[in-house]
Amino acid sequence: MSVHLAKGTRDHLPDAMRLRLAVFDTLRRVFEEHGFHALQTPAFERIDTLMGKYGDEGNKLIFKILKRGKGGERGECDQALRYDLTVPLARVVAMNPQLRMPFKRWQIAPVWRADRPARGRFREFVQCDCDIVGSSSALADAECLSVASTSLQALGFTDYRLRINHRVLLAALAATVGAADRETELLVAIDKLDKIGRDGVSKELLGRGFTQAQVEAVWRVLAPPSTGRDEVLAHLEAQINGDGVAAAVARLKEVVELARALGVPDEALVIDPTLARGLDYYTGIVYEFTLDGVDMGSVGGGGRYDGLVGMFGKRQVPAVGLSLGVERLILILSEQGRSLPGVGGVDVTVTLVDEAHRVHAARTAAAMRGAGLRAELILDPTKLGKQFKHANAIGSRFVATIGPSEVAAGGVALKDLSTGEQEILPLDEAIARVHSGGIDPR
Amino acid sequence: MSVHLAKGTRDHLPDAMRLRLAVFDTLRRVFEEHGFHALQTPAFERIDTLMGKYGDEGNKLIFKILKRGKGGERGECDQALRYDLTVPLARVVAMNPQLRMPFKRWQIAPVWRADRPARGRFREFVQCDCDIVGSSSALADAECLSVASTSLQALGFTDYRLRINHRVLLAALAATVGAADRETELLVAIDKLDKIGRDGVSKELLGRGFTQAQVEAVWRVLAPPSTGRDEVLAHLEAQINGDGVAAAVARLKEVVELARALGVPDEALVIDPTLARGLDYYTGIVYEFTLDGVDMGSVGGGGRYDGLVGMFGKRQVPAVGLSLGVERLILILSEQGRSLPGVGGVDVTVTLVDEAHRVHAARTAAAMRGAGLRAELILDPTKLGKQFKHANAIGSRFVATIGPSEVAAGGVALKDLSTGEQEILPLDEAIARVHSGGIDPR
Repeated sequence: MSVHLAKGTRDHLPDAMRLRLAVFDTLRRVFEEHGFHALQTPAFERIDTLMGKYGDEGNKLIFKILKRGKGGERGECDQALRYDLTVPLARVVAMNPQLRMPFKRWQIAPVWRADRPARGRFREFVQCDCDIVGSSSALADAECLSVASTSLQALGFTDYRLRINHRVLLAALAATVGAADRETELLVAIDKLDKIGRDGVSKELLGRGFTQAQVEAVWRVLAPPSTGRDEVLAHLEAQINGDGVAAAVARLKEVVELARALGVPDEALVIDPTLARGLDYYTGIVYEFTLDGVDMGSVGGGGRYDGLVGMFGKRQVPAVGLSLGVERLILILSEQGRSLPGVGGVDVTVTLVDEAHRVHAARTAAAMRGAGLRAELILDPTKLGKQFKHANAIGSRFVATIGPSEVAAGGVALKDLSTGEQEILPLDEAIARVHSGGIDPR
Repeated sequence: MSVHLAKGTRDHLPDAMRLRLAVFDTLRRVFEEHGFHALQTPAFERIDTLMGKYGDEGNKLIFKILKRGKGGERGECDQALRYDLTVPLARVVAMNPQLRMPFKRWQIAPVWRADRPARGRFREFVQCDCDIVGSSSALADAECLSVASTSLQALGFTDYRLRINHRVLLAALAATVGAADRETELLVAIDKLDKIGRDGVSKELLGRGFTQAQVEAVWRVLAPPSTGRDEVLAHLEAQINGDGVAAAVARLKEVVELARALGVPDEALVIDPTLARGLDYYTGIVYEFTLDGVDMGSVGGGGRYDGLVGMFGKRQVPAVGLSLGVERLILILSEQGRSLPGVGGVDVTVTLVDEAHRVHAARTAAAMRGAGLRAELILDPTKLGKQFKHANAIGSRFVATIGPSEVAAGGVALKDLSTGEQEILPLDEAIARVHSGGIDPR
């Protein structure tokens, strides 16, 4: 008999697996340091769970599984292999109202797409996602950027960019150029800028019936006079009309500030008005990660998708997340001949006393994570008692609080939930205390 | 819209994932300590790779994937979800003649079967396999028993049995009772002994046309006067006629001796003449693992399958392996409220100078593994130079050799491949030397 792999699939032999597992372990560690928890969903879902979530092109790429019994003999299908990890997550959230919010989960698992196989494009590939479900906070958006930045650093990358945009700006752009009803077409074309260049995008838009004036208007907006973040945002706010534009620009400024406070290097944060992201479901910030000097497109991305969970139920649940292009990252690491060292709970919960102290809380969490601790950062300033209950529920022995008096004293209030003792300590000492006592009891 | 999981599948939410990942990490550590390497194969294979390997019942349980394009519209299928991890492994070995033999791989990954869902039976479940491909050695069989024993211990289980039988004895049993042409029917019935009892098996055999005299003859053989290993084996050798019987009995004795030398507790090793194993492809030793006082059938099993790789190519490659019933183990650990602590190359290669020194080599490897080292044990006494090359190729810095002079000196010869230095040391000191120097360079 002949012996072949299924088209577009591959084996990962032990030599390759060594790097793959090291990458997975490293990312898992970063995710756990950031307070994310593991989730596993089935490889296949009911067809109606997947269909209609990825646009027309996505629908075509979904692998369908033949029904058992009579239906299968007629070629009927009721189930399909997952296309990504995000739609299954939304399904999980809709089906499990008991989940503690915000629900922060990581998942590293294969997905399947019936794409035409090509060099570097396979029908089975691993996706690596972190999502925060149940918070609308800009800090949640910033946490995702911090996960991305820390992950790339943990894999040994130093020169990377986190490119950021906002879906509302793109929608308003469509309206501004008089194409409000053709937003998807506009986005699909702009999304190809990296691959086909400006002339290619223009040609595609003209081919789709956009006028020359519309195409010129698009490029006026998308080509700001400077690449500085403030200048780009000022340009966009001035050039794009629409109700949500000022708020979207303000949100992007906010997320950038918080991401810096979480330790994302200033030079890594770039506003990119041409960034569209292919998928339909984004509603707010969108981002993509690139490596300088590596000609391989993005190495990850994501954004906010506040409408997706609501498609599976009555509850509207906000969500934001990122997907690391882990197959590309592995390929780059492999081609560069790089190696990685070898890897759960939360050690400490950093509370959020009010909106005014978000930067303090974020810096505290970043310092703790930088020291190797798994630090949960509270994203929304609910009552402190609730935050402490949350810390206890997630098994966090220590809680660090930074309010006005702690800021004045130049420290953090560290509480040991196992003894009830609390002390205001310099940050270094608080970290040392958690390190010495915060052994995961699992 | 309605929101449901696909039939027979489930989500693993974070609380459950904590135990699952701890189990996977623990098993991975045990597998690596035993010198196994990770392999990952695709979720789906070409249909012709899978069909005909699992018997008629297995064929029916294979999930088929609809073809893309015109074929799919007619209900045609060319690919299918894997049913186990063993057939894909055989396909990998057949397709990759460059693989270094013996090829020892572990894989922890989901498989899919279109079974009728029931309590504890799902259509997607994780399998956890270790296989040694390319060695006919009894030591390879014993290594598998050692992996099983160490795995169960690492998960915190102390009272377990490794039940052992030999396919040749079962085949000869069929011939002995005058049913050589109906071996599969006989095995399928005997395989149900745990579930339906002796009366149930007798009834099924009579229903299938076996005579009363045949059924009685079967039970005469399968009910030895004592459960002691030597007594059972003597009984089987006396009661079963056939060319291979004496060799099979001798092999079982050999494997038991080697497994004990590898550290498998004496009381865990049981000869069970009724053990059949369902799958068609076994050719030699078969085994199943049970936990005392846990009423849940076996928690794993496996055996030798020297014909499977040959089904995919011209090469006949011997193989032996085990599959841990990791879903059942997780369920038991969960129900018992147990927890586990949290988690890769080879630290040291233990050579095999000749057949006479297998026990010494095995004990040395067991002691090293017991001390937390990842120890590769050479299974076949090829030329020592070849074994050293193998050690170097697999990245083992140290090589431990136990020949006549080492035995006389009461130690092992430990060579540091990075310096070329060699010394005869007591075992304790050799372990300490590897521990202090054997840091995995990955």
